[in-house]
Amino acid sequence: MFDQHEQTLSRAMEAIAERGYWSAYPESPSPRVYGEGAAERGKEAFESYLGKPFPLDQHGTGHWIGAERSPYGMELGITYPEPSPEQLVELAKAAMPAWRDAGPKARALVCAEILHRINQRSFEIANAVQHTTGQAFVMAFQAGGPHAQDRGLEAVAYGLAAMTAAQPSARWEKPAKGEPLVMSKKFTVVPRGVGLVIGCNTFPTWNAYPGLFASLVTGNPVVVKPHPGAVLPLAITVAIAREVLAEAGFDPDLVTLAAEEGQGLATQLATHPDVRIVDFTGSTEYGDWLERNATQALVHTEKAGVNTIVVDSTDAYKGMLGNIAFSLSLYSGQMCTAPQNILIPSEGIATDVGHKSFSEVAADLAAAVGRLLGDDARAVELTGAIVNAGVLERLEAAPSLGEVVLESRAVAHPSFPGATVRTPVIVELPAEREDVYGREHFGPIAFVVATASTDDSLQVLRRTIAGRGALTASVYSTSEQVLESAERTALEAGVNLSCNLTGGVFVNQSAAFSDYHGTGANPAATASLTDPGFVAGRFHLVQSRRHA
Amino acid sequence: MFDQHEQTLSRAMEAIAERGYWSAYPESPSPRVYGEGAAERGKEAFESYLGKPFPLDQHGTGHWIGAERSPYGMELGITYPEPSPEQLVELAKAAMPAWRDAGPKARALVCAEILHRINQRSFEIANAVQHTTGQAFVMAFQAGGPHAQDRGLEAVAYGLAAMTAAQPSARWEKPAKGEPLVMSKKFTVVPRGVGLVIGCNTFPTWNAYPGLFASLVTGNPVVVKPHPGAVLPLAITVAIAREVLAEAGFDPDLVTLAAEEGQGLATQLATHPDVRIVDFTGSTEYGDWLERNATQALVHTEKAGVNTIVVDSTDAYKGMLGNIAFSLSLYSGQMCTAPQNILIPSEGIATDVGHKSFSEVAADLAAAVGRLLGDDARAVELTGAIVNAGVLERLEAAPSLGEVVLESRAVAHPSFPGATVRTPVIVELPAEREDVYGREHFGPIAFVVATASTDDSLQVLRRTIAGRGALTASVYSTSEQVLESAERTALEAGVNLSCNLTGGVFVNQSAAFSDYHGTGANPAATASLTDPGFVAGRFHLVQSRRHA
Repeated sequence: MFDQHEQTLSRAMEAIAERGYWSAYPESPSPRVYGEGAAERGKEAFESYLGKPFPLDQHGTGHWIGAERSPYGMELGITYPEPSPEQLVELAKAAMPAWRDAGPKARALVCAEILHRINQRSFEIANAVQHTTGQAFVMAFQAGGPHAQDRGLEAVAYGLAAMTAAQPSARWEKPAKGEPLVMSKKFTVVPRGVGLVIGCNTFPTWNAYPGLFASLVTGNPVVVKPHPGAVLPLAITVAIAREVLAEAGFDPDLVTLAAEEGQGLATQLATHPDVRIVDFTGSTEYGDWLERNATQALVHTEKAGVNTIVVDSTDAYKGMLGNIAFSLSLYSGQMCTAPQNILIPSEGIATDVGHKSFSEVAADLAAAVGRLLGDDARAVELTGAIVNAGVLERLEAAPSLGEVVLESRAVAHPSFPGATVRTPVIVELPAEREDVYGREHFGPIAFVVATASTDDSLQVLRRTIAGRGALTASVYSTSEQVLESAERTALEAGVNLSCNLTGGVFVNQSAAFSDYHGTGANPAATASLTDPGFVAGRFHLVQSRRHA
Repeated sequence: MFDQHEQTLSRAMEAIAERGYWSAYPESPSPRVYGEGAAERGKEAFESYLGKPFPLDQHGTGHWIGAERSPYGMELGITYPEPSPEQLVELAKAAMPAWRDAGPKARALVCAEILHRINQRSFEIANAVQHTTGQAFVMAFQAGGPHAQDRGLEAVAYGLAAMTAAQPSARWEKPAKGEPLVMSKKFTVVPRGVGLVIGCNTFPTWNAYPGLFASLVTGNPVVVKPHPGAVLPLAITVAIAREVLAEAGFDPDLVTLAAEEGQGLATQLATHPDVRIVDFTGSTEYGDWLERNATQALVHTEKAGVNTIVVDSTDAYKGMLGNIAFSLSLYSGQMCTAPQNILIPSEGIATDVGHKSFSEVAADLAAAVGRLLGDDARAVELTGAIVNAGVLERLEAAPSLGEVVLESRAVAHPSFPGATVRTPVIVELPAEREDVYGREHFGPIAFVVATASTDDSLQVLRRTIAGRGALTASVYSTSEQVLESAERTALEAGVNLSCNLTGGVFVNQSAAFSDYHGTGANPAATASLTDPGFVAGRFHLVQSRRHA
């Protein structure tokens, strides 16, 4: 087993340097890949949790808590041990020395085994992700399963690469008068301290695994604090991690679950003097608060952003419209990477099917979304359900912001009558309403904005991203000069750019081992998944030297 | 020239991975190495600055300021352009894009050229270091010259390694039904933002070069704010950097000097919203303040610490005493790495010359220091001068702290009658006076402490370092078990350990490319010179992708 993991780790370390296509965990939920009956067994495992205390053998106050509710309408009724934050931190600290002493390689192998077992339970986790986030099943499987696992393994590879970049021991021989001075030196990786991962409602595993595994592989215990609305996917994850750690002879309290119903547990943990690493995904307001207040910790945040598409011209009008329509519809725009602002010159654009006025582009995009989501049964497999009341409120308020180009539509889910399903709204705004489109409206809300020119669009992009950040940017143009100008603007704004996506790659999607997710270079995030900066501060090197 | 630098960089990148002995810049001030007349020309260059405005072609308010005074008694009378902090930051920002666009390799080559020219001016800088820090000349040459330059190059190598660990472009080809999805991707290193280096009084170049070059090579402009008492060595450095940058076609405002007489310029700059990196060496109080308040920046601090020697037993009693005596005397204990607490079991220790009681060890150490510094002319070449009034006050107050084992002695400097030269004081304290020896007494002040046992000594070491930090720890023992126990304690305390130093290697000294200076794992410092964590957060990666 460990032979196989060694190969996987070695391939993963190649992949993070090459940045081409590679994936360790197959994204297809096909029985040909995951085996006959795997899907059914995963669903059964998920259902076995409903209405019961979750089987997690972990210290706590003795109370069991939980307030999750499926966006598909089901009461989940699962409870989790109520944690005592002080106790979790103490247990974590006590577990640390043996984990440190195991060394980078052993820790990486244990992490690989945890990820392997998580992968084997992808269907179970997919159901858990679906019913806490509202993602449609296939997306919940892919993004919540293999893609999240790939991101976790990527973090392990980065950690291992950083920890092993220098030799663990050395002979130092300095020429000197007479005899040379000779010392033998030993360099040991020591962890920074207890890590805290604060999960989000929409991507509980995908956004938590990088921080979890980056901290763990570098020797740090991790307290996992899920969003109160999406505990189950991380509870399963924590249970698997604890099982593998115990089997490998380590203290399972290296990974613990800190469930809450929303009483401010994150603040209590994040400012604990012994919590030295915080990985957070969530609101800008709280992320900024953490950056300013959890000063005892290394804080990595992923927050809100204003993702932008600049439309200049295209030689594939239909492909462009279809691609953007898909990006707006996927998980009802509830992705941190989903585009919000679509900037189009007021005089319209050149396309392969002739000149299109601003209004034509807006109307054609609306029609493309309409076509894509025309059939309810197929629509729900793309949009999933609305994750929480906050998104629904914003969506309902959106028409008042400007002129509605496409109305949002409530869709009846064929399998879940209680599901809250909505298609995107598209609102037209004049360029001067930067007060509206210059901030994030998280959910299925997009704005088409008529700008003076593509240059103007790029300036709007740069300004809004400098002000509020973005995780993605996208440009459509047939002009190499415009593309170069967009690349330059994206560099200045510090945002990852996609150019002329008209096929099966979408701006919302980033592939582990190749695409960086976020940059750290604009207000949307202080870190990137995954770059050297994401792992480096999580460990230190301590040396011992003596005469050889 | 650049061919030569490429070889140097490539060798430096090997060295940071191998961690054996390597140095790019010769530490011997011999004319056989640096050429006949080099020493004299350096001294003349230094003297040419005295009593005049320093020739630095840089924007400022129009006023010239400066309040440096040599610990050797000379008035220096050098003035520097008074900066407008807002202007320096604006100039730095404006200079950034072209420097970013040059890419990692070109920046590293320019940094190597800056270091090369600094190296050529080592004698001039040595005089400047001597007369601002009080270091003796040879130390000022070595630590302020080649050793500092090595640390700078080390930072360049770490930065280059981190920036080039992944390919700058990639072809991503994902198998799909029908045609594979193919994207071409480009990954660009972008700087974090304006860097600020806050220098210290005692090692203006050695402690500033790592941050300066780590920021610069990763694309960030740097504002250098020297300690008001040690401006000249960094003014020369900044002038050289600006000269090389301009010759290479870059904006010299990538590196600027922010001189002050002590009006709080550091705070003004460190909390500027556009200052995104702060490298600080200095007091614990101010370092802690920066960590809590410069939350917009990546903050690396090196602060005070309680460096400790644990004496258990030795098979080289004379060597041990000589080694410790040297460490206490070198630059009058004014090194952040100088030992302060010497912990000895109250029942004494076994040595190669028989059992020695606690009092015998203390007395023999006092005698060893006395012998080492017995001759005034030779003593001053080891101790240098007292850097400032604060150190002198602490030294004068030290005898009241406990029982004096060795009195400090004022030494008349044969060449500089105005020099303030003092030999170390050694004070005996009982184990229970942790309130005294548990904090730093910066300067030529050492404590011998009688502990219950070596185990007790290790517990004291661990406790004092956990509370106040340390940059170095040292142990003497003939027992492999004690050495292992000391190594384990040092790991837990997060401090670098030296074992049984009895010859020509001293606990105060750390060699670039092999020894880590500080760990970041205890309160004395948040960063290590240099490990991956020191460079990684200074840059981000921004990608652009399009269909291939």
